[in-house]
Amino acid sequence: MINQQIFVLKFTLKWLLMAVLVGLAIGSASAFFLVSLDWTTHFRENHPWLIWFLPLGGLAVGAIYHYFGQDVAKGNNQLIEEIQHPEKTIPFKMMPLILLTTLLTHLVGGSAGREGTAVQMGGAIADFFTKPLKFNDLDRKILLMMGISAGFASVFGTPLAGTIFALEVAFIGKVRYEAILPSLFSALAADYTCQVIWQVGHTQYGISAVPHLTIPTILWAMLAGILFGLVGMLFAKSTHFWSNLFKSKITYPPLRPVVGGVLLAILFFAVGTSKYNGLGVPVIVESFSEKLPFYDFLAKIFFTSLTLGSGFKGGEVTPLFYIGATMGNALTNFIPLPIALLAGMGFVGVFAGASNTPIACTLMGIELFGADAAIYLALACVMAYAFSGHAGIYSAQKIAVKKYQEPDETFL
Amino acid sequence: MINQQIFVLKFTLKWLLMAVLVGLAIGSASAFFLVSLDWTTHFRENHPWLIWFLPLGGLAVGAIYHYFGQDVAKGNNQLIEEIQHPEKTIPFKMMPLILLTTLLTHLVGGSAGREGTAVQMGGAIADFFTKPLKFNDLDRKILLMMGISAGFASVFGTPLAGTIFALEVAFIGKVRYEAILPSLFSALAADYTCQVIWQVGHTQYGISAVPHLTIPTILWAMLAGILFGLVGMLFAKSTHFWSNLFKSKITYPPLRPVVGGVLLAILFFAVGTSKYNGLGVPVIVESFSEKLPFYDFLAKIFFTSLTLGSGFKGGEVTPLFYIGATMGNALTNFIPLPIALLAGMGFVGVFAGASNTPIACTLMGIELFGADAAIYLALACVMAYAFSGHAGIYSAQKIAVKKYQEPDETFL
Repeated sequence: MINQQIFVLKFTLKWLLMAVLVGLAIGSASAFFLVSLDWTTHFRENHPWLIWFLPLGGLAVGAIYHYFGQDVAKGNNQLIEEIQHPEKTIPFKMMPLILLTTLLTHLVGGSAGREGTAVQMGGAIADFFTKPLKFNDLDRKILLMMGISAGFASVFGTPLAGTIFALEVAFIGKVRYEAILPSLFSALAADYTCQVIWQVGHTQYGISAVPHLTIPTILWAMLAGILFGLVGMLFAKSTHFWSNLFKSKITYPPLRPVVGGVLLAILFFAVGTSKYNGLGVPVIVESFSEKLPFYDFLAKIFFTSLTLGSGFKGGEVTPLFYIGATMGNALTNFIPLPIALLAGMGFVGVFAGASNTPIACTLMGIELFGADAAIYLALACVMAYAFSGHAGIYSAQKIAVKKYQEPDETFL
Repeated sequence: MINQQIFVLKFTLKWLLMAVLVGLAIGSASAFFLVSLDWTTHFRENHPWLIWFLPLGGLAVGAIYHYFGQDVAKGNNQLIEEIQHPEKTIPFKMMPLILLTTLLTHLVGGSAGREGTAVQMGGAIADFFTKPLKFNDLDRKILLMMGISAGFASVFGTPLAGTIFALEVAFIGKVRYEAILPSLFSALAADYTCQVIWQVGHTQYGISAVPHLTIPTILWAMLAGILFGLVGMLFAKSTHFWSNLFKSKITYPPLRPVVGGVLLAILFFAVGTSKYNGLGVPVIVESFSEKLPFYDFLAKIFFTSLTLGSGFKGGEVTPLFYIGATMGNALTNFIPLPIALLAGMGFVGVFAGASNTPIACTLMGIELFGADAAIYLALACVMAYAFSGHAGIYSAQKIAVKKYQEPDETFL
């Protein structure tokens, strides 16, 4: 019996040490990424003509991956596959390549996010330790989950969401606890490194008034959750649509984001606003308090799916926050819930639907908006998860438990 | 594609309807149980001589189960086994029997809880619908999880914890999402029924000051979590110890709680205080603000394991809250964290360790104490989970992912 505890203590100390190493590295990378992304975003906002460089930026991004990064081009899906079936160490260059091309995408005004970048940097940095430390397959799985957790936690400032996201993302419909302790450690270490050591903070959101749970508010929240799920599915399908279209029509990969860039530049110019460029954090913040045009979420789906589908780089998640928050904002037209609550529910709900990670997203909502809204956030995330279908933004996800059919009878 | 959504909508409406039915019934049962438990507890407190009826009460509890309840005597474990491998409908009498014997146990001053009772009432009520509605095995699994979720949620006023607890409790080391939507619905319906319709509320706890996360506070929280896990294990082992001892020494089952009752009556009289009788809610509340004797948690482990191990009825969870909160209180002797924070961490941490449900317990902590303490609560629950071994309070739990060995390589 005491042997068990000594074994666990060794396990704990080993992963605590790894978490400090991995967390310091990934938290620092996230801090650098967030600061440079901030600088890039401001620079682009002050030089709106940069959108005309979208085709050139696209060429650079496309060429970089075509000539130097074919073995890391699958990005998040590559990490997910390695967690499912460990085969090949992630090349370390995944980290500089995704960092550089994400910044390029944002510099020229592409509509993209940052979590994919942080997660890929995290995975590449974590897996870097596999060979020198001679880790076996199980250790490597744990290490990769630590990397994902650390990247996610530090880029959003949400360590609990990062912890569970890493355990939840590889399979649809289940969470396994191999890495629960290492994942929590690395999330904390990376978040601490980013926020405390490097003093790089995160946007604060607030849901001031949360109505008491009544039967009508619960039913409205369920309806909102269903709609968030459908929109999460629409986003995933749009991205896959553009991606398939460009792949089938343009055989030379570096040309795809060039064509995408031409289209994007013309359309951004035509809409005459920069609110759909980049991360769109100011719009997300506004959506918690001011009434916005109802079509904002549709425009953001269009621009982001075109940006990413044509081959630009970056994450999907901040645009999903944008889409969800502005959609929640739009839903106040007929759903009688407070604007901030619906924006917050959409923020995590659309992401939960598109990524199939309802528990991580509920925890993220609680970490960002507080526990008062917890039930509403959970309803949004779980309903969105149920209604978003099986094909989310991560095509490598495997289905462990189906959402709408009899799951197989082997319950273990 | 639209077909999918229609399927999900049917699934959702079916389980929403079931959740309303099941939630109304279970929430009402919990409300009645909580009110009668309250009455019983007050009556016992005003008539301290009732502890001398422990042997007689024990005889009644033992005889009731021996002559009328052998097929429902396994209680929570029976529900867990049916979720793992559905075989036999839970006899409805599980509900009145556990209700009656729990109240009897509390009337004569046994040290026991209420979650086992609520969960068993929930399971029995939910499974009651299986036959008339001709549910298949998968439906039945979902129904049983709904019952557990509803019972847990309504007896503690924590719907999110109830939702996840039901998904987490049958297997150690994983959560599967078959029932995530039905479980959330029934938790909300039962909690609403108990709190809003019947106006039966719950004790409020508060953690007023949560220190900023620093490296020392994180390390102290980890250490506390380890200790909570070891104490959770000690509790489970003590209960099994008494249970095995009584079973091996006394062949006639109704006699076991009689002998246990004699021992308990003498020992309760000897310690000369009623603070270890019953649920002990006032002591739990005190432990958040006042310094208590350091040995309180050891005494509560002793009295509760003897009460339940000798055959009295009731849950383990509120005593585990008591044990954890008073232990957290005691840890302030050498861990420099605020008393309310350590009490709250122990409250959920010891339970997480003993029940192997770290995510449900983290959510419970957030629901009861707010999101500010979320990281500390998660550290307590996850560390306690890691250090509590594989033999928790529910002997029927199966191990899906081991805590301290190489898990099997089949990751699915």
